Amino acid sequence: MALKTPEEYKASLSSMRPNVYKFGELIKDVTTHQSTRYTVEGHARIFQAQNEDEHREIYTTTSHLTGEPISRYLSIFRSPEDMIANSKMKRLTFQLTGTCTGGRCAGWTAMNALFASTWDIDDAEGTEYHQRFLEWLKDAQARDITMAGALTDPKGDRTLAPHQQADPDMNLHIVERHDDGGVTVRGAKVMICGVAAANELVVMPGSAYGPDDADWCVAFAIPRDAEGITIIEARHPSDDREAGCSCDDDFDLPVKGGGITQAYILFDDVRVPAERVFMRGEWKYTRNSIMYFIGPYRAAIGACVAGQGDVMRGAAALMARANGLDEKVFTEKLNQMAINNETTFGMGIASAVMGKQHPSGAWLCDPLLSNVNKIHVARLPYETKVLAQDIAGGVAETGCMPSYVDFTDEGYGELLQKYMGAAVDGETRVRIARLVEWLTIGAGVPGCMHGGGSPDGAKMFIRMFSDLNGDMERAKDLAGIDKDVPKPEKKKRN
Amino acid sequence: MALKTPEEYKASLSSMRPNVYKFGELIKDVTTHQSTRYTVEGHARIFQAQNEDEHREIYTTTSHLTGEPISRYLSIFRSPEDMIANSKMKRLTFQLTGTCTGGRCAGWTAMNALFASTWDIDDAEGTEYHQRFLEWLKDAQARDITMAGALTDPKGDRTLAPHQQADPDMNLHIVERHDDGGVTVRGAKVMICGVAAANELVVMPGSAYGPDDADWCVAFAIPRDAEGITIIEARHPSDDREAGCSCDDDFDLPVKGGGITQAYILFDDVRVPAERVFMRGEWKYTRNSIMYFIGPYRAAIGACVAGQGDVMRGAAALMARANGLDEKVFTEKLNQMAINNETTFGMGIASAVMGKQHPSGAWLCDPLLSNVNKIHVARLPYETKVLAQDIAGGVAETGCMPSYVDFTDEGYGELLQKYMGAAVDGETRVRIARLVEWLTIGAGVPGCMHGGGSPDGAKMFIRMFSDLNGDMERAKDLAGIDKDVPKPEKKKRN
Amino acid sequence: MALKTPEEYKASLSSMRPNVYKFGELIKDVTTHQSTRYTVEGHARIFQAQNEDEHREIYTTTSHLTGEPISRYLSIFRSPEDMIANSKMKRLTFQLTGTCTGGRCAGWTAMNALFASTWDIDDAEGTEYHQRFLEWLKDAQARDITMAGALTDPKGDRTLAPHQQADPDMNLHIVERHDDGGVTVRGAKVMICGVAAANELVVMPGSAYGPDDADWCVAFAIPRDAEGITIIEARHPSDDREAGCSCDDDFDLPVKGGGITQAYILFDDVRVPAERVFMRGEWKYTRNSIMYFIGPYRAAIGACVAGQGDVMRGAAALMARANGLDEKVFTEKLNQMAINNETTFGMGIASAVMGKQHPSGAWLCDPLLSNVNKIHVARLPYETKVLAQDIAGGVAETGCMPSYVDFTDEGYGELLQKYMGAAVDGETRVRIARLVEWLTIGAGVPGCMHGGGSPDGAKMFIRMFSDLNGDMERAKDLAGIDKDVPKPEKKKRN
Amino acid sequence: MALKTPEEYKASLSSMRPNVYKFGELIKDVTTHQSTRYTVEGHARIFQAQNEDEHREIYTTTSHLTGEPISRYLSIFRSPEDMIANSKMKRLTFQLTGTCTGGRCAGWTAMNALFASTWDIDDAEGTEYHQRFLEWLKDAQARDITMAGALTDPKGDRTLAPHQQADPDMNLHIVERHDDGGVTVRGAKVMICGVAAANELVVMPGSAYGPDDADWCVAFAIPRDAEGITIIEARHPSDDREAGCSCDDDFDLPVKGGGITQAYILFDDVRVPAERVFMRGEWKYTRNSIMYFIGPYRAAIGACVAGQGDVMRGAAALMARANGLDEKVFTEKLNQMAINNETTFGMGIASAVMGKQHPSGAWLCDPLLSNVNKIHVARLPYETKVLAQDIAGGVAETGCMPSYVDFTDEGYGELLQKYMGAAVDGETRVRIARLVEWLTIGAGVPGCMHGGGSPDGAKMFIRMFSDLNGDMERAKDLAGIDKDVPKPEKKKRN
Repeated sequence: MALKTPEEYKASLSSMRPNVYKFGELIKDVTTHQSTRYTVEGHARIFQAQNEDEHREIYTTTSHLTGEPISRYLSIFRSPEDMIANSKMKRLTFQLTGTCTGGRCAGWTAMNALFASTWDIDDAEGTEYHQRFLEWLKDAQARDITMAGALTDPKGDRTLAPHQQADPDMNLHIVERHDDGGVTVRGAKVMICGVAAANELVVMPGSAYGPDDADWCVAFAIPRDAEGITIIEARHPSDDREAGCSCDDDFDLPVKGGGITQAYILFDDVRVPAERVFMRGEWKYTRNSIMYFIGPYRAAIGACVAGQGDVMRGAAALMARANGLDEKVFTEKLNQMAINNETTFGMGIASAVMGKQHPSGAWLCDPLLSNVNKIHVARLPYETKVLAQDIAGGVAETGCMPSYVDFTDEGYGELLQKYMGAAVDGETRVRIARLVEWLTIGAGVPGCMHGGGSPDGAKMFIRMFSDLNGDMERAKDLAGIDKDVPKPEKKKRN
Repeated sequence: MALKTPEEYKASLSSMRPNVYKFGELIKDVTTHQSTRYTVEGHARIFQAQNEDEHREIYTTTSHLTGEPISRYLSIFRSPEDMIANSKMKRLTFQLTGTCTGGRCAGWTAMNALFASTWDIDDAEGTEYHQRFLEWLKDAQARDITMAGALTDPKGDRTLAPHQQADPDMNLHIVERHDDGGVTVRGAKVMICGVAAANELVVMPGSAYGPDDADWCVAFAIPRDAEGITIIEARHPSDDREAGCSCDDDFDLPVKGGGITQAYILFDDVRVPAERVFMRGEWKYTRNSIMYFIGPYRAAIGACVAGQGDVMRGAAALMARANGLDEKVFTEKLNQMAINNETTFGMGIASAVMGKQHPSGAWLCDPLLSNVNKIHVARLPYETKVLAQDIAGGVAETGCMPSYVDFTDEGYGELLQKYMGAAVDGETRVRIARLVEWLTIGAGVPGCMHGGGSPDGAKMFIRMFSDLNGDMERAKDLAGIDKDVPKPEKKKRN
Repeated sequence: MALKTPEEYKASLSSMRPNVYKFGELIKDVTTHQSTRYTVEGHARIFQAQNEDEHREIYTTTSHLTGEPISRYLSIFRSPEDMIANSKMKRLTFQLTGTCTGGRCAGWTAMNALFASTWDIDDAEGTEYHQRFLEWLKDAQARDITMAGALTDPKGDRTLAPHQQADPDMNLHIVERHDDGGVTVRGAKVMICGVAAANELVVMPGSAYGPDDADWCVAFAIPRDAEGITIIEARHPSDDREAGCSCDDDFDLPVKGGGITQAYILFDDVRVPAERVFMRGEWKYTRNSIMYFIGPYRAAIGACVAGQGDVMRGAAALMARANGLDEKVFTEKLNQMAINNETTFGMGIASAVMGKQHPSGAWLCDPLLSNVNKIHVARLPYETKVLAQDIAGGVAETGCMPSYVDFTDEGYGELLQKYMGAAVDGETRVRIARLVEWLTIGAGVPGCMHGGGSPDGAKMFIRMFSDLNGDMERAKDLAGIDKDVPKPEKKKRN
Repeated sequence: MALKTPEEYKASLSSMRPNVYKFGELIKDVTTHQSTRYTVEGHARIFQAQNEDEHREIYTTTSHLTGEPISRYLSIFRSPEDMIANSKMKRLTFQLTGTCTGGRCAGWTAMNALFASTWDIDDAEGTEYHQRFLEWLKDAQARDITMAGALTDPKGDRTLAPHQQADPDMNLHIVERHDDGGVTVRGAKVMICGVAAANELVVMPGSAYGPDDADWCVAFAIPRDAEGITIIEARHPSDDREAGCSCDDDFDLPVKGGGITQAYILFDDVRVPAERVFMRGEWKYTRNSIMYFIGPYRAAIGACVAGQGDVMRGAAALMARANGLDEKVFTEKLNQMAINNETTFGMGIASAVMGKQHPSGAWLCDPLLSNVNKIHVARLPYETKVLAQDIAGGVAETGCMPSYVDFTDEGYGELLQKYMGAAVDGETRVRIARLVEWLTIGAGVPGCMHGGGSPDGAKMFIRMFSDLNGDMERAKDLAGIDKDVPKPEKKKRN
């Protein structure tokens, strides 16, 4: 059966080899350890949704390989409608979980990029990566796995190519090519979301590479607990709320799906069998594989950001009420939050619709619009957070409330509860304020700025894909200028 | 033949009864008088385009009524694709003309609103407006007419309804209902674009009306030169460039399609025959007819604004070159201009795609997204203008150049030409600078703020169509709050 | 001797009665307990500075009461120069400490507000508060105390006045007036900065009160450890870094002055002796006492915010270098950070200079300019944070680095250090990234939005102090309008 | 008598040699010709003000050379108070005139720059420019002259220095040095404000020059009508309103001080006598003379911009009333306008106060703060204009009203007046709307972006004067980093 229940999902994680560490400690079972169980719960919510009548349509689709019902997170984008559904699902998922379920979206997008890239390589090189990929995918769909996407290398000196680094490990690389088509790899992938909640990792190059970087060009899928893989989870602001959560009611951790997790994945001579290798030195195709990734990623991330904003907007309006104010007082600000949310959502839709089909059948989003959306994603949610804090008041802005432990203290707890109350009781008001804090300055703040690449990188694409020469030609025509207006040659002022 | 040439279009205007005034003077022939011939040229460019192989696909389509090829400006929006084509055409039209061709887009949108509204009225009231409308439309398509849309009434006291005004004429109204179904109307429509270049006017109510306003609820199409109609063209900044244009080369008027025209149309007991009347007192349907208008209008206007921005971007980059600078110096600013352009374009696309079908077959854009786009349209082009002026330098910012007459003066003209030169000759540089001036502070600045309704009005719709209650519910769920958080009751502080 | 050393300062804290709690635990000695010792260190840096030749001039001044050298934090603002020195000191203090030393600035400003208010009351009512205040101040200067300012009440239902609250304790109030002029008070002050590091509390009303609120109008100074006072420290994002700091080198806590502290202060029938009581029911003077507070507070807070921005700017530029990039790449962004910093700094200077003298000798900042500055303070630092994150990259944006404990793990620590390295070694890079995280999304983010009052409150003052009627008159004159243009009367649309 | 009346001022202009052209026509008398008389009226308002009790204190001061009362526009800035008075006067002047009185402020500032520069040159070179300058100044004060400041050269290729230009005339230069210390100059100064209303021109280099540019380094004061000077006035948007003004009541020209004038001044071998020459080849001092100019200019321009904003704010609020709306509806927008106004005003005050004394006695504004203000001046007034248009509605946005001639037409004029009416009569409403148009998109829009230099130039100074190295050092200290974090060396990626 291709659609797991939350319990089956968790069981699949529990049975894996422990290789995740945090604060120096090996986590025996990610589904129960306090540092990881919350993010597992967040991801489990998706498995619940795909089994709910209300949400099945958005969370599942039909495999174009097998005709079977599958998780949408394991499907190939083949039309604008697929991308629109992607956006809708991302927005809804944040609304349902209140947190980043990063063990799904980056892996899904990377998988789609490899779908198209393996087709390209086979088409040009006569290799058989695409068929191999489809076999793996069919199996992944059948197993209904969760897979994190791993692109970002440590990179070392950002101004140098992989082969120029003092230490070759600064980008994940092939240390041995096996005769059967397999590889052994070494290095790391860093700041990878949702790893603790994932069954597998989809690994691909993080940048466009040149001919001397062939050994660094490697893509594959691998179980998260494969031999040689060690994972260390990063420490974030407020993530101690999970670790120190004193009981199920502890509202210092307002979102039961927990905070965002980002892992450092160390590959210590990890062997990848041939049937899971999707690139092995074909550096020429890295430029496009990156483009295949960022197109849908930057389109649909706007919907996730919209979902974040929806929750902040609801929380801010609730906080207004809790403070005794009709939310109408804040109409202008709540409207601006809606404008921000709809803008990142809408631009993703536009990018999907204005895209085009790849010969493999993959749907490629419009690169100009998706990169413009990346710029909005790197600015508008910050404004939305500021507005949420503006509406919610000082108590939410810096989260300056007594801890749950103090709030329930036998001595002074009752007084604190009394003084936290306003138009609603103290506990309710603190729960809302903690949610605002969590989303705007705590562990619940997703990486909108650099996640999926930096805004400065997006600007390079905007420059590339916008038609400045055409704009100049049209302006010349309108101004009645016949002659050439050339780019001035460089001169030396003295 | 349904697709006129520019010459046929102009001939159709020349043969009309003169009823357009400016500066106290009756304009005998709008195609030759210096105050109107430029806007006629701008509109004529569209007739040229529909006969060009390169542009025919975008400027023409197939009538769903007759199966004949028609101007797209006379078609009904029946799918997202129709709306996307609308957006593409609007962007291209501004690129080709450098000015507002307002005699087409508002009339087209009003016509589409009446397509759906007449269906609604007939469906509920058993009337026969829709069929009547279709007959008129078929004929309009066959004649390939240009029609301005007229919604805005003088309004008088904005806080009162039409029937409450001291003077009933402050909103266009029915003074007599004729037995044959015709009407006689009195009042005015004001600030109407492209009237001098139009064959007909499509008139409809400018606001939602109540039962006491039935006499003010009237929609119809009418020849621009019908008996009783008097038109006075408004005076804008820089529109003297047209009136005083000294010769064809006069670059003080940089855009040969001329400036934006906006007219005051006086209706002095104008008789409208039954077959051209599309609403006659059915006040209940005004709310929806307005919604049918603003949906596609606010979606597609973003594409027009994008076209404006494309021209400004090209002109600014040209000006950089003319000043001796590589446009790369201004990459950040040129990127921001592209971001602004793509945002208003893209949000319109999203609004189209997320829309839905009306039972009449009309396609209704998503109201939340189209109103969000209105907000962007009311802000981003201003930033684009500021960036254009920032890049182009002081000479363009305030247009502080000698007049064409001085520039060609026998005495000092040569010196002025010399001193205006930089990396290009003086004339070329002035032509570019005048284009920037024209688009950013002269007669070429379109009314992005209030055209098609005010941004504050759009915010009311955003509040209405965004789901704040849902956002609050989801935030409550996430925060683990079971109890109600009601809107606080109003209390009196003392 | 009026200028304490850091050691003397800490000794003064150690000798106080323990009454500060966090996480349910009573803190025995605030100078050594892990939850409070860092903020004490931050405040101690000021005592060090006032004893350094380099900084003495800015940190000390001459008492206008005694002619003795005193801490500037215990002086009265009596000229624009005093306010400029205030701004300079605030900016420098953030640069030196990297954190909020809230145990000084709010108390200082409250003290200044009481200086003027006690004069007003005595002048009108014939009381003797001012002399009493001066006696206390002389003593405070001689003892070189640190005092937190406590204005914010729990407030309960924000739409009701204190006397209307269901529970009178929702605002601090007098429960008994003693014959000798002393009072007994009950209630709380909440979200008070720097309490753990303070010797005394300066308490005054948090809003303007009416006649029925006389019992809530009470101002006084009191030792932080007076009988009946219980303090609970709030829990913030990242403040576990202090609690769990594993050793002196632990760079997860990048700022050795620690995070911002905000306390809930419970007053359980606390007796204040007459010589420390500065308001006792004189509700008429609360409106002005608030104005006396927000004037200098909102002027000078801009300098603190500038200091925050200076540190973020330096940290962002360092991070660029650590990533291998010349900071010149980010000139536009670094410039914008400087613009933001200088704007909040400069507007405070302008507010000081355009102020006027109070009859008591106090200097009152210009209320329009100081409230405009509040608006900037509530927006610009957020943009500065966004820019810091934009420059610094993903690792700083969400602080997604392994913990210090993992970083120094015997097994995988070395690999993590290697992979964190770029143009500099891994530890150095992490130290910088943690600083950016700390200042932009961790425990080091000061409450710029609502600290010292909300921006919406400031806007009410801007409306009040800006001369809209005068602006309208001048516009009328210019437009050549003689007649009245009255405010329209309210009508009912129907 | 040193303080002229308006009549004396106009008489001084009438008696000058006619050398101003516009539209190919030589203007016989600038005080009566329709193209220049309005700007003369604007400047005359200042002469009126200096003779009014209400305004004398701000418009006059005491000559530090003679102790006589003089126009403030002829005084030397010698203290922060002088600069504050400068700011106050600039703001008030815009409020009184509604237009740019550019014949005063740039000349005044240039004169101040030369005061300090001549001192510098004499001090280092043993020349006697300063005494010569003081003699001229005393005389100028006694004659109470109006003088335009002329810095901007045509420049030609902006990437090359003056001596590198193909044509040496592209920057004003010395063609002959006379034995008596006089010079003959050739070239042009372009886009110079207020020339037609000025008695003299204060001319100085527009950029910092190098040793090979010595012949281009020339500064002097000269009567506007000196032999060899020819002036052509630039054509702006809407300046036809002046030329075609049909009568004194014609409200198409809402501001009786007229629009901004900017002139092209041609110097055709103009002889300047020794006693009026203030730089003659001393290129080393051009860098500082520019700094001496932009310091006070960029500080005080913010006050002029504030005055502009005050008028827009008043006009927008009036328009709200005219439309039937209480201005309270627009409180948020009106507040933002006030914030913008006070920001450019306040930053200028701060720049003045944080400045320092030059050895000559001149007061030098803080360069960092004055350049930050330039950035605000290049952005905030645009937002203010957008807000004015947002509040005022479509009629003001594009100025789409019938001309005065149509409005008073015998046939349809009455109907137009009726339909323009709302809460006030039609004429009053149009007068206000024309004022908004004039200030936001017509001839009344001052050059805030590039006037006094470009914002990009200001950013170079911000980079220079802000202490990034210091910021990095402090960040390092806080982060506990001992080692060097050097600027990365440039490497080649391959």
